Amino acid sequence: MKRIGIVGSSGFTGKECLRLLAAHPEVEVATVLSARPSVSDPTAYRGALREPSCMPFDPQAVDGLDAVLLCAPHETAAQLAPTLLERVPVVVDLSAAHRLRNPAAYETHYRFVHPHPELLETAVFGLTEWAREPLSNATLVANPGCYVTSVLLPLLALRAAECIAPASDMIADCKSGVTGAGKSATAVTHFASVHEDFRAYGVGTHRHEPEIREQLGTQRLYFTAHLLPVLRGILSTIHVEPRTGLGADEFRAVLLERYAAEPFVHVHTDDEGLPCLADVQGSNRCHIGVANHGPRVVVVSCLDNLVKGAAGQAVQNLNVVFGLPETFGLDAGASPLAGWR
Amino acid sequence: MKRIGIVGSSGFTGKECLRLLAAHPEVEVATVLSARPSVSDPTAYRGALREPSCMPFDPQAVDGLDAVLLCAPHETAAQLAPTLLERVPVVVDLSAAHRLRNPAAYETHYRFVHPHPELLETAVFGLTEWAREPLSNATLVANPGCYVTSVLLPLLALRAAECIAPASDMIADCKSGVTGAGKSATAVTHFASVHEDFRAYGVGTHRHEPEIREQLGTQRLYFTAHLLPVLRGILSTIHVEPRTGLGADEFRAVLLERYAAEPFVHVHTDDEGLPCLADVQGSNRCHIGVANHGPRVVVVSCLDNLVKGAAGQAVQNLNVVFGLPETFGLDAGASPLAGWR
Amino acid sequence: MKRIGIVGSSGFTGKECLRLLAAHPEVEVATVLSARPSVSDPTAYRGALREPSCMPFDPQAVDGLDAVLLCAPHETAAQLAPTLLERVPVVVDLSAAHRLRNPAAYETHYRFVHPHPELLETAVFGLTEWAREPLSNATLVANPGCYVTSVLLPLLALRAAECIAPASDMIADCKSGVTGAGKSATAVTHFASVHEDFRAYGVGTHRHEPEIREQLGTQRLYFTAHLLPVLRGILSTIHVEPRTGLGADEFRAVLLERYAAEPFVHVHTDDEGLPCLADVQGSNRCHIGVANHGPRVVVVSCLDNLVKGAAGQAVQNLNVVFGLPETFGLDAGASPLAGWR
Amino acid sequence: MKRIGIVGSSGFTGKECLRLLAAHPEVEVATVLSARPSVSDPTAYRGALREPSCMPFDPQAVDGLDAVLLCAPHETAAQLAPTLLERVPVVVDLSAAHRLRNPAAYETHYRFVHPHPELLETAVFGLTEWAREPLSNATLVANPGCYVTSVLLPLLALRAAECIAPASDMIADCKSGVTGAGKSATAVTHFASVHEDFRAYGVGTHRHEPEIREQLGTQRLYFTAHLLPVLRGILSTIHVEPRTGLGADEFRAVLLERYAAEPFVHVHTDDEGLPCLADVQGSNRCHIGVANHGPRVVVVSCLDNLVKGAAGQAVQNLNVVFGLPETFGLDAGASPLAGWR
Repeated sequence: MKRIGIVGSSGFTGKECLRLLAAHPEVEVATVLSARPSVSDPTAYRGALREPSCMPFDPQAVDGLDAVLLCAPHETAAQLAPTLLERVPVVVDLSAAHRLRNPAAYETHYRFVHPHPELLETAVFGLTEWAREPLSNATLVANPGCYVTSVLLPLLALRAAECIAPASDMIADCKSGVTGAGKSATAVTHFASVHEDFRAYGVGTHRHEPEIREQLGTQRLYFTAHLLPVLRGILSTIHVEPRTGLGADEFRAVLLERYAAEPFVHVHTDDEGLPCLADVQGSNRCHIGVANHGPRVVVVSCLDNLVKGAAGQAVQNLNVVFGLPETFGLDAGASPLAGWR
Repeated sequence: MKRIGIVGSSGFTGKECLRLLAAHPEVEVATVLSARPSVSDPTAYRGALREPSCMPFDPQAVDGLDAVLLCAPHETAAQLAPTLLERVPVVVDLSAAHRLRNPAAYETHYRFVHPHPELLETAVFGLTEWAREPLSNATLVANPGCYVTSVLLPLLALRAAECIAPASDMIADCKSGVTGAGKSATAVTHFASVHEDFRAYGVGTHRHEPEIREQLGTQRLYFTAHLLPVLRGILSTIHVEPRTGLGADEFRAVLLERYAAEPFVHVHTDDEGLPCLADVQGSNRCHIGVANHGPRVVVVSCLDNLVKGAAGQAVQNLNVVFGLPETFGLDAGASPLAGWR
Repeated sequence: MKRIGIVGSSGFTGKECLRLLAAHPEVEVATVLSARPSVSDPTAYRGALREPSCMPFDPQAVDGLDAVLLCAPHETAAQLAPTLLERVPVVVDLSAAHRLRNPAAYETHYRFVHPHPELLETAVFGLTEWAREPLSNATLVANPGCYVTSVLLPLLALRAAECIAPASDMIADCKSGVTGAGKSATAVTHFASVHEDFRAYGVGTHRHEPEIREQLGTQRLYFTAHLLPVLRGILSTIHVEPRTGLGADEFRAVLLERYAAEPFVHVHTDDEGLPCLADVQGSNRCHIGVANHGPRVVVVSCLDNLVKGAAGQAVQNLNVVFGLPETFGLDAGASPLAGWR
Repeated sequence: MKRIGIVGSSGFTGKECLRLLAAHPEVEVATVLSARPSVSDPTAYRGALREPSCMPFDPQAVDGLDAVLLCAPHETAAQLAPTLLERVPVVVDLSAAHRLRNPAAYETHYRFVHPHPELLETAVFGLTEWAREPLSNATLVANPGCYVTSVLLPLLALRAAECIAPASDMIADCKSGVTGAGKSATAVTHFASVHEDFRAYGVGTHRHEPEIREQLGTQRLYFTAHLLPVLRGILSTIHVEPRTGLGADEFRAVLLERYAAEPFVHVHTDDEGLPCLADVQGSNRCHIGVANHGPRVVVVSCLDNLVKGAAGQAVQNLNVVFGLPETFGLDAGASPLAGWR
């Protein structure tokens, strides 16, 4: 039994880690640390979780643990990482603090000077399906962003197979549920601002765009974010020009082959149509479908922003680092959000 | 490994049985029969369930199974039950076809003449926490209604302990999510009729009122139903007069004692406040809270209408009949609907 | 053309006053004062309203106006009222600061010592349909609470006609949309707390209970509040015992007669069934329906909490005070929230 | 006072015409005809509209009217149009039956052979802001599609001013509320299919794509539709490459100039940010905003699919044909859906 700690348990990702790990057969949450006094309000998980009590942050509290899931805000995570790495063999950082290679990008996109830029070189970008080898001996894992994961899973495979026309801009028009906006109560997250509304945000300035571009190795990826009046889920509609002679059938064949053995990436056959949020909510799966649009191709990629887009992928990465089966803690049957549709 | 069949898999309860049993360690769904051609649309449970293929109904298909979960419409269930009981040792009927003792009530409330009234005497009313002994050798289990379960769990305990004034009317003002209204696409279930709306329905005529009254042994229970713009969950607000000298503290003490050992009934302490839908969605738990209202007492009872109100209680009953631990298949960790609130 | 001021324009009620008065043919909003720097975010009403610019509060700014709509928080409103009354002939207070007769109740229920208890005697409780005579020469109007209006409109008429058994408790089980909880961004109003959830709140302690009881002249009214995942609307389900020999037909006849000439109270005939939120959202109407429940009667009353429950009734009261037709500013056709259901 | 008829009043567009015309000072709905027995369920518009009673369709019933709003299904509208045009001077067709110039397109996209292709040449495509001259003496007006209006209003202006690079594909990633899917109760419109879900549909096959392309005069417009869990509103995110040297500032300047005098098109200044559904729900306005996205430009266009996207534009067109002020019936103040955000 591996014993891990969670640092930062008051936000959605920390809570989702607790939810998933409660069903993990080989990992025990031994310690929960938080700047706020308690893990959660008294109603959360009531009756379902045996929650360890939450304590104020203290570096010594992680001594002897096998790993830490770092769910703190970006700048805090950047500050804490070296201290934690001195005390535990593995840190999986769910913030963006170690996702970008270029330290200067933190000033531009996150408005802080990165305090430990040397870690950016050693951190492993934890898109599990594309990082198993470096993950196997990683000490610091940078867990990818939610939008980022939904866009990279199809595009990395399609670009590796040279499906996309080299001159094609890739337009990723992405939509996310409100849990992606975090737990802070603001005018933006007020029920009266979200319900029966829909909006674009961060056009041309969203922090996930440089992250996607760095991983794809191109500036031709254009990412736009929108806020959906739902709790969970990201649906990314990606518009591309295929290489001459190719279309949805070839795209699908490439994706089906690349992800055939993956437990958490499901490529839709033509019969299955395009995926939707209800296919993935509550699960660690990413569903991908493709369709012709005249000479162009539309790729639709869906995942749950809190699971494959955050806590689920963190657990998946932890399983890889620990040498455990990747599905441990992530295979708890169908979700009550998806099951009955 | 017990092998069971599901008859009627196109509705919400049949699908929810499939969802829950996919995680059951000792029960396998060997056969799925349905009047409709397939278990479900191709998107349902995709990637999560190993669904047995669905076949048209044929009585011989259940031969040799250990039990059948009967998820057919009320009148169909009444017709099929004797045939099924000749072929399998146990039938759990999720419809209302065997819940009422009085055959005449079916004409009044369900508008059909019960074809096999003799079964109404032998059927065990499967409110698990109150029926373990008869369930242990039951052949036909009448799984209780969703509203019914939410009202009976607190009131049976409170009446047994004589907490409620004998002359008190009990006003159960209940609210349910849309999955309680079934999967048929009608003007009532159209998104444009439900979203941003709320309504009372069936006032004075709802079929669950005679079911509750029969179990409570009194006509003084007045049940009102309302349709909430949510997917899952029932919240019942029950207004009663306590016996002289009693109040919320005594009610809570009675409930805490009665349900102390129950895995699926959680009585809120005073500190926990009153329960809400997010406490129970996706789980088989019923949460109960009480509060003083001047000299009166308000009892709030919550459950997921598809789980403890239907499929979950059916699995719980099946576990009792099979002599398995009651939590098997019902303990899959916290729900993605409740975890992050 | 009457010229009025709005004091406190950053909350929902202030904004709703602006929305309604934009279509008023005889009232002009000449001045908007607010403790916050601007009337609203730049997106509000964009293109639809000619908004007067908003200024910080200054008593002199209301000099010469014909009336003020006071939309400040309760305690602020209590403090400001005398100053405003020295400068304008009429103040309609949309807060609770002048609704209760008993000054001590403010300490108990609103946690402040009322600074000007003498005003509680002169303030007119502005439930328009029951207060036209005192309103006609009022200087200070206490606009009723939203829940309060929904409960009083049916019960005042039914009690006046002695329809309800004298010994009957009246159980008002009420449900409100989120705009009733105010515009502050809190854990309670976060989209992730409200969407797909439902809860009771303030059981036994809600501030609207003493207000209803004072107006009804009885302590036997028991009010319970619930939070609906909708923007607008209150539905109150009121459970009563009728006087012997009476039932829904007699209740309906009394209500139809009492409100026959009222433009904003619509009593449903038996054919129309019970009202729902979609009947009233966006309008100043209260819809009332009744149904037998065995020997008891259920009364369902619906209104829009921001219109008949707040700003609409304030405009209606202003019309009465000014001697204008009551429907001015309140009769702008059907609402886009109700029209297409 | 102009007297008009509505043919087809059971769907959302027919009902929305009734809603808007109830506040029109110069148009009276004299006749309502429908294949279904009544205009609406008894609850619709209750207390707000003086509804003319609805009669079965009979051509003679429109004799003597000044115009007909034709709200029938596409094929029925194609069949009825000539008959109606013999009897009334003006028909505004809200279906798609006369929007496309090419008769063959009806077989391809609408699956029926157009019965009166000669009318396709005389029908005026009623995008009001671009069609006032032909509208002024039109007899048959083809009211544009909802998505179509949201895409054409910005793109016609930007293409006329040669803002967009000639070689640029235009990617219109559009999202619509459920009322755009019609009033039929289907598996797709069931609350349990829509709520807390989001999906793309009709990718590469949607009927509005040929309509947009015909009006733009190019095949390089790629339209994708998505279903939002909201009642009303379309938000179209349009991704284009600008002509060299241009960007959002120039786009905005062109749009501001083109629509400066338009009452129903509001172009956001840079300070106002991008529009969202709450800016337009319930109103006849289209809001347009632009933002740079690196070297590309994103255009966001919002409208209410039932108003500017259907019934509102029909009333606007009727006003033009009748020589009335265009805002009559469309200027009823701020909407209760938008006002308080």
